Amino acid sequence: MAVYTEVSDEDLKAFVAAYDIGDVVSFKGIAEGVENSNYMLQTDKGPYILTLYEKRVNPAELPFFLGLMEHLARAGVQCPVPLKARDGAALRTLCGRPAAIITFLSGMWPRRIAVEHCAELGKALAGLHRAGLSFDSSRANSLSVDGWVSLFARTDRQAADDIEAGLNTLITEELGALKKAWPAPGTLPSGVIHADLFPDNVFFRDGKCSGLIDFYFACNDFLAYDLVICLNAWCFEQDGAFNITKANRLLSSYEAVRPLTPAEKAALPLLARGAAIRFLLTRLYDWVNTPAGAMVKPKNPREYLQKLNFHRTVTDITAYGFN
Amino acid sequence: MAVYTEVSDEDLKAFVAAYDIGDVVSFKGIAEGVENSNYMLQTDKGPYILTLYEKRVNPAELPFFLGLMEHLARAGVQCPVPLKARDGAALRTLCGRPAAIITFLSGMWPRRIAVEHCAELGKALAGLHRAGLSFDSSRANSLSVDGWVSLFARTDRQAADDIEAGLNTLITEELGALKKAWPAPGTLPSGVIHADLFPDNVFFRDGKCSGLIDFYFACNDFLAYDLVICLNAWCFEQDGAFNITKANRLLSSYEAVRPLTPAEKAALPLLARGAAIRFLLTRLYDWVNTPAGAMVKPKNPREYLQKLNFHRTVTDITAYGFN
Repeated sequence: MAVYTEVSDEDLKAFVAAYDIGDVVSFKGIAEGVENSNYMLQTDKGPYILTLYEKRVNPAELPFFLGLMEHLARAGVQCPVPLKARDGAALRTLCGRPAAIITFLSGMWPRRIAVEHCAELGKALAGLHRAGLSFDSSRANSLSVDGWVSLFARTDRQAADDIEAGLNTLITEELGALKKAWPAPGTLPSGVIHADLFPDNVFFRDGKCSGLIDFYFACNDFLAYDLVICLNAWCFEQDGAFNITKANRLLSSYEAVRPLTPAEKAALPLLARGAAIRFLLTRLYDWVNTPAGAMVKPKNPREYLQKLNFHRTVTDITAYGFN
Repeated sequence: MAVYTEVSDEDLKAFVAAYDIGDVVSFKGIAEGVENSNYMLQTDKGPYILTLYEKRVNPAELPFFLGLMEHLARAGVQCPVPLKARDGAALRTLCGRPAAIITFLSGMWPRRIAVEHCAELGKALAGLHRAGLSFDSSRANSLSVDGWVSLFARTDRQAADDIEAGLNTLITEELGALKKAWPAPGTLPSGVIHADLFPDNVFFRDGKCSGLIDFYFACNDFLAYDLVICLNAWCFEQDGAFNITKANRLLSSYEAVRPLTPAEKAALPLLARGAAIRFLLTRLYDWVNTPAGAMVKPKNPREYLQKLNFHRTVTDITAYGFN
């Protein structure tokens, strides 16, 4: 929850005047999203989202993200589309920061995940993966195995053990094992992945998925890796229990749109460990490095430690209610 | 900036179904307002604001606030109106908290105050005061002189002096002086006041005031006291300098709608000291008592110490560019 940049009415008016979207009627900061400043912008033509990209986003990568959204929307994926100003530019500057206006997507993200949400998610994710195959730009995943190792190298080891005795050793061993076993590039179907498809990035309306948002972690990687990021984010209960019914619906509805290869199926438990340690490590880093008075509360890394430990016990995908 | 209560989609759907406002299209927390949780609610009939009243608001007082908004809107004041559910109730319960849906007001609050804003504010405030005279309910101002004394009694004295050497003594003396000199009830024109009309509670569109929001401090008190709350909130620059041009426009445009009595004019400097110490004390209390990791950053009390000190040097209202 965060609005980092305060936009003055004069600056906003001048910014919006460069688009064909009418006059500003209302402008309110949205208390969601931790990376950027997001505003609900109402003009007399309708609602839009105005995003100011804050320091965590590399400005050089913004054309990739905005171009991807445009490509996906054109291919039929329900996602926000960046608006072009009259000069043709979608990426502009406001208050000294890169900024864009994107279309408003109806729907609400689900606070309590039901089995049906997982079924809808599987379909939407597979549709995203299929549509992404024809996108001609690419971006390496900076948060894959090497990224995890270097992130952990920058994390205070003592702080890790303060969170859970032995966490340090567990992560070191797990990173070693994943580095050894991780599939080589090209050995599994690859393409553009969302890489952060948590419930707050998936909107629903009347029980149907109405859109996917927040493509600012999108990159190229194994498609099945995106699927297990979702498995981790959607198929565990609040108390840490794995919900095999949700997993089954997620995986089988995904497969109904894009069938998984035998190699992908075999790799799922390993990829799921990777997807768990990826969020364990970023949460651990943020947990240790967020100053006490910060506006954004860091998420507890323990949740992903539990998920990692679960997948370490999995030998094949029948544990996911799948075959 | 705060959303305290997380509302699930199921709870929201059930809540909205009790009104004739169509189906939920979108629901986003607003990163403004520190007392309550505010959501932008879009239905297929349009935009609304959903407010959940958090612990700082006394539920017993909510009918006063909601009734006041209804009364003012009916009298022509541009302000949000609480919607009645089909059972006739405007005040209902959501997630165990009192909650209401109010109409959406267009406009943006001004981030940089211009002289013209102050002129518009004066007119709007006087209109609010006139419309409030016929409201038949009342609420005592718990943050007048006795309230200040009791709030200061609950504030850590050492912490006050840590902020500014001698602050403790200054406040004690000032409270004594104000208690002695404060006008007796009935000696100045009184009625319903907003009591918190800071820039973020006043919306503008195309340079015109488009509405007033956030009536949750409204109470009965001297009307001129409300005016000097605005004087303090709108007529000082970022660097602490008093802007006599803004003050002149605020006061004279107010007076064009509701002329001030000679007694009110004479009392303005004293009332302004009171209005300054009121916000100095609440900010001081919050500054001292907000835990380090809190989501809401307390405002620095020094700003209001400067304003208090300015008014202590004022002998008559020519210092406000007024006569």
